[in-house]
Amino acid sequence: MPTDLAPLALAQALIRCPSVTPAEGGALDLLQRVLEEAGFRVERPVFSEPGTPDIENLYARIGSGAPYLLFAGHTDVVPPGAVEAWRHGPFAGSVEDGLLYGRGAVDMKGGIACMLASALDFVRRDGPDFGGSIGFLITGDEEGPAINGTVKLLDWARARGERFDHCLLGEPTNPSRLGEMIKIGRRGSLTGKLTVHGRQGHVAYPHRAENPIPGMLRLASALATEPLDGGTAHFDASNLEFTTIDVGNPATNVIPADARAVFNIRFNEGWSAETLGAEIRRRLERAAGNAVRFSLDLQPSNAPAFLTRPDAFVDLVAEAIRAETGLTPKLSTTGGTSDARFIKDACPVIEFGLVGETMHQTDECVAVADLERLTAIYGRVLDAYFAA
Amino acid sequence: MPTDLAPLALAQALIRCPSVTPAEGGALDLLQRVLEEAGFRVERPVFSEPGTPDIENLYARIGSGAPYLLFAGHTDVVPPGAVEAWRHGPFAGSVEDGLLYGRGAVDMKGGIACMLASALDFVRRDGPDFGGSIGFLITGDEEGPAINGTVKLLDWARARGERFDHCLLGEPTNPSRLGEMIKIGRRGSLTGKLTVHGRQGHVAYPHRAENPIPGMLRLASALATEPLDGGTAHFDASNLEFTTIDVGNPATNVIPADARAVFNIRFNEGWSAETLGAEIRRRLERAAGNAVRFSLDLQPSNAPAFLTRPDAFVDLVAEAIRAETGLTPKLSTTGGTSDARFIKDACPVIEFGLVGETMHQTDECVAVADLERLTAIYGRVLDAYFAA
Ligand SMILES: [Zn+2]
Ligand SMILES: [Zn+2]
Repeated sequence: MPTDLAPLALAQALIRCPSVTPAEGGALDLLQRVLEEAGFRVERPVFSEPGTPDIENLYARIGSGAPYLLFAGHTDVVPPGAVEAWRHGPFAGSVEDGLLYGRGAVDMKGGIACMLASALDFVRRDGPDFGGSIGFLITGDEEGPAINGTVKLLDWARARGERFDHCLLGEPTNPSRLGEMIKIGRRGSLTGKLTVHGRQGHVAYPHRAENPIPGMLRLASALATEPLDGGTAHFDASNLEFTTIDVGNPATNVIPADARAVFNIRFNEGWSAETLGAEIRRRLERAAGNAVRFSLDLQPSNAPAFLTRPDAFVDLVAEAIRAETGLTPKLSTTGGTSDARFIKDACPVIEFGLVGETMHQTDECVAVADLERLTAIYGRVLDAYFAA
Repeated sequence: MPTDLAPLALAQALIRCPSVTPAEGGALDLLQRVLEEAGFRVERPVFSEPGTPDIENLYARIGSGAPYLLFAGHTDVVPPGAVEAWRHGPFAGSVEDGLLYGRGAVDMKGGIACMLASALDFVRRDGPDFGGSIGFLITGDEEGPAINGTVKLLDWARARGERFDHCLLGEPTNPSRLGEMIKIGRRGSLTGKLTVHGRQGHVAYPHRAENPIPGMLRLASALATEPLDGGTAHFDASNLEFTTIDVGNPATNVIPADARAVFNIRFNEGWSAETLGAEIRRRLERAAGNAVRFSLDLQPSNAPAFLTRPDAFVDLVAEAIRAETGLTPKLSTTGGTSDARFIKDACPVIEFGLVGETMHQTDECVAVADLERLTAIYGRVLDAYFAA
């Protein structure tokens, strides 16, 4: 039975595969079948690592020449949470009032359905000899630890000699309206654990103890208040947020031995994890002077800041968006990390997908009209990319 | 068999009663027997309260006239901790190199032994008609929640018409040498729980969240850095210590919803719990402005600051100490709370006992010579008090 290749039907079929990380749930099988029917060569590498679940992935390509445009994404989804709280079952793929409901509707089974529909339509129209290559790099481990997913899939492809010219990642990038925002990079992420050391004692004898909390207040205040930079042309200012401070002392008459805090920094292209870590350490040392004993543990980060400098490819995508939506997309580097942080080492990567408002929430949903418009946008990108 | 009434023998006998709070352990039975043999009228009220263990107490009096000097103390002890870490068993009462070892050696079975030995000697020398009254108010609930101990014992005595002129509480008051320090009052204790309210969110979207941690840093810093006062003639400056700050957020990419902290203030006679609470609230409101949402929960405190103003009784005790030790005791209000905070409502109370260095520790011990000298000091107090 031939599959309905309209984006809505594809999105529904994908939502009905319960592919909560790390489960494949039938989603990659579905992609494989549809892509093979259209003439793509499909591979299904499975990656493993001790202590993590095995993860299924998919790589597909049609054509053998350049230019090579790669669509990237993930079929795994975050858990639905309380299923009974959903208006429609999270894996039912129900449509009501022009909205398709389901876990992954926007993040990002809907986006994958649009990529797929546009590519299949393009190949059907232009045939397999369109003078370039179209690929799909799809992982089942984006919402999980991201260890057996895109990183290994890119290594695997590189080892096979695969070379991409550009990548379009279909994550939901629009805050509230389709067409508002392309992501052309991302701030980096650095996490630090700060411990201030003191000496335990009784509150009635503070001179015999050394309370670490005033030292923590001093050091944490120094980091929380002084801006790191003023931002750059394409990036917001780097931002530090303390995510927790913990002492865990239940006794109201005891001065504790030490205090711990964790902070996360989203940093722009003005810093590397190394230069930023050094600056943080310098600020802490200055605030501590000889009065506060502390230790700082900077977590190794696999999330540096990166930027795909606006170029002809970005223009081409922006023009396709403008043509379909009438909006001029903002070129943004905001928001949380995505697999673009890995892909950027293989080729220039930009992100454009659906409206992210409901992602990871109960009643995640997408407008059916958005699925059709995004398919049309991707179709214009393919047309323009291979016409050039 | 007559009991050996030397302070060392009494202290050993008491240490051998395993009276870890709330157990009586035979300690009060021993006191009762010795006091009754000497002619004291002894009562053994037991107090209870739902949710707390029943506690045995002891009240003894000899004589019926004024002046009435009350000895106060407790026979309960804190747990010994790791028994195998002790040089001698915590309940063995062993003597080595002039030191008596055991849980309670200084806090405060040793002190009780000295009170008892001095009073029994005084009564033996002067007979029961010495023209006044000597009493013992001994609880088994000082190291515990202090609910079924001295507070209820004082109520019970007041209901019976007992009126005291002065009280000498035998807690260990000397930091390192017998004779150094009398305590004539104590700072009050007030505990506050501060919560700063924010709004949870993702670290990559701080503008959509409200991180409570910078607000906590601001409020806690305001309290931790600005002195409360400069102290008074008899009191150190009031002191605030943060004892814990907790957020408990395990996710390094999540801005938490709120942050909690606990502080304890030891405050001098310049404040009541009410005036101090109001000042703390005022300082927090000033630091918060419109920028920080917080709530403050001040724990009801049964520990106000109090002072027994130096008078003839304090002079008399100080003179007895000088005569036996050659030291002029400092009149102090430092240190942690004791049952003196309850007794001060019944009559003027001062504290003088052994050297507290080893209290609550492994190998708690007292110099046998100190037991003898403290007994002699208490004896001089009795002689002078009833000679007046
Ligand atoms: Zn996603
Ligand atoms: Zn004590």
